[in-house]
Order: sequence, then C-alpha cells, then structure tokens
Amino acid sequence: MKKFELGDSYEMKKFVSEEDVLLFAKLSGDFNPIHIDEEKAKNSIFKTRIVHGLLLASYISTILGMYMPGQGTIYKQQDLQFLKPVKINTEIRVLVKVSEIINQEKNIYKLETSVINELDEVAVLGYAVIKYMGEEVFLCS
Amino acid sequence: MKKFELGDSYEMKKFVSEEDVLLFAKLSGDFNPIHIDEEKAKNSIFKTRIVHGLLLASYISTILGMYMPGQGTIYKQQDLQFLKPVKINTEIRVLVKVSEIINQEKNIYKLETSVINELDEVAVLGYAVIKYMGEEVFLCS
Repeated sequence: MKKFELGDSYEMKKFVSEEDVLLFAKLSGDFNPIHIDEEKAKNSIFKTRIVHGLLLASYISTILGMYMPGQGTIYKQQDLQFLKPVKINTEIRVLVKVSEIINQEKNIYKLETSVINELDEVAVLGYAVIKYMGEEVFLCS
Repeated sequence: MKKFELGDSYEMKKFVSEEDVLLFAKLSGDFNPIHIDEEKAKNSIFKTRIVHGLLLASYISTILGMYMPGQGTIYKQQDLQFLKPVKINTEIRVLVKVSEIINQEKNIYKLETSVINELDEVAVLGYAVIKYMGEEVFLCS
C-alpha cells in the first residue's frame, strides 16, 4: 500500500461561484444574509457576500477522499480556523501537506490543510488526521 | 445585544437523504465511492454508504449562523472529530451548547458541537469558537 512522506503535498484550484454558494445554502440550510444577500452584506464588516466556511472546508475533504491519499482514506479529525473571508466568484487554492507521520505502519498521518483566497491570504488554516487504508477499505465482505 | 450563558443550547433534527449526499458530492467534488457507490460501499468497513463528514459539519454551521446565536455570528474556529459513521437516509440530531464564555464583554464563546447518529452514537464531536456581533455586523456602511 502506498505510504506518504513528510512534505508530500497536493494543491487544487477552485473557482467558487455564486451558484455554488446558493446550492450550499440550500443544502445546509444556512441562508445567513452574509452569504446570500448582497444588499445587506455590502454594509457588513466584509463589504460583500462571503463563502460559507464549511463549503471551503469541503474542498479539503475532497482532496483527502479523492486525490491525496484518495479512496480508502478514513477521516478522523479536521480542525479549522477561519482567518480571512473568501469572496463569492473568486478563485481559491486548497493545499494539503503531510506535516506529521503519526504511525507509518498503520498509515496514520497529520496533514496541514489550508485555503488561500484571491488576495493570497490564508483564509482557512488547520489540520486533518487521516488513516489511509487504500483498497482494504472495500475488502470487508 | 443578546448575551449567552453557560449551558445555553440548541438542537436540530435533520433527515439526511440520498439526494443531499449526491448534491454535496457534486458541490464539493468528493465522489469517493464510500459515499456514492452502494455496490462498493457494502463491502467496506462501514457495510453501506455513509454521509460526508463535512456535510454533517455544515449543519453545525447552520445552527450557528441561523439560530444560535444567529445572524451576526463571526465563525472563528471549528474542530471536528469523526467518531462514528452516519448512514444515508437516516435522521441525525445536531447539538450546539455554550461550554465556555471566553469573553462576555466581546461576546466570544466556545460551544460544544455534536452530531448524533440514528444509533444514538456521537458521530461527530468538536467545538466551535464564535464572536457574536448581532446586527452590528451589518452596520458598517
């Protein structure tokens, strides 16, 4: 099974559209005007609508479950600090990097996870803990 | 402005449907078979498809942004431990409870956040840190 080393990383770019934000509002039930009402949001401390923090976090989970490590990842923990806003209709970068090998034999890793906004600021910073089982996850019949 | 006390809490029930999970897969890009392929998932360690952890977390954020404290909440931090799976097409309970008053004057609180699955197990456990600004958030023009 594939093993990971300190510093192994993956980066993904994603344009977060107004449609994405409205869909996430509908799905989660979070219709806070800061996300969906431009008239109200333009008078807010953020001056415009911002993307839901958990929608941003979902892209981290997508990297973990699809690309690095990929299928067979067991998601154990995710810590998130929301540091800066991400405006709607901007492109973000999502980065995942192995920051600690917790147990090499059992393939348990700590990964630094970050979302960078269009101003090149770290908007969301945190870490994930995952166990990578590869195809073994699907061999339990 | 409204202040909160230790132990103040909010609970929400939510049925998480197959449609919700497919929509979240499309939105996040996380098409990991453990969430969307029942044939493959039934041979997995979970025996069936499970809900994305970050979709579960999004309901926590919905309580914070919509109900308690509600509009005017600044989301500063969210830590999540994924302890047990949540199966698709089951009802969950999402709980938020004030566990620490970090700064009463500035309205900064730590809240225990949990998602309970249909077996009454704590599926997701963690805490949020929020600053509640009420309508002041929208008075910056």
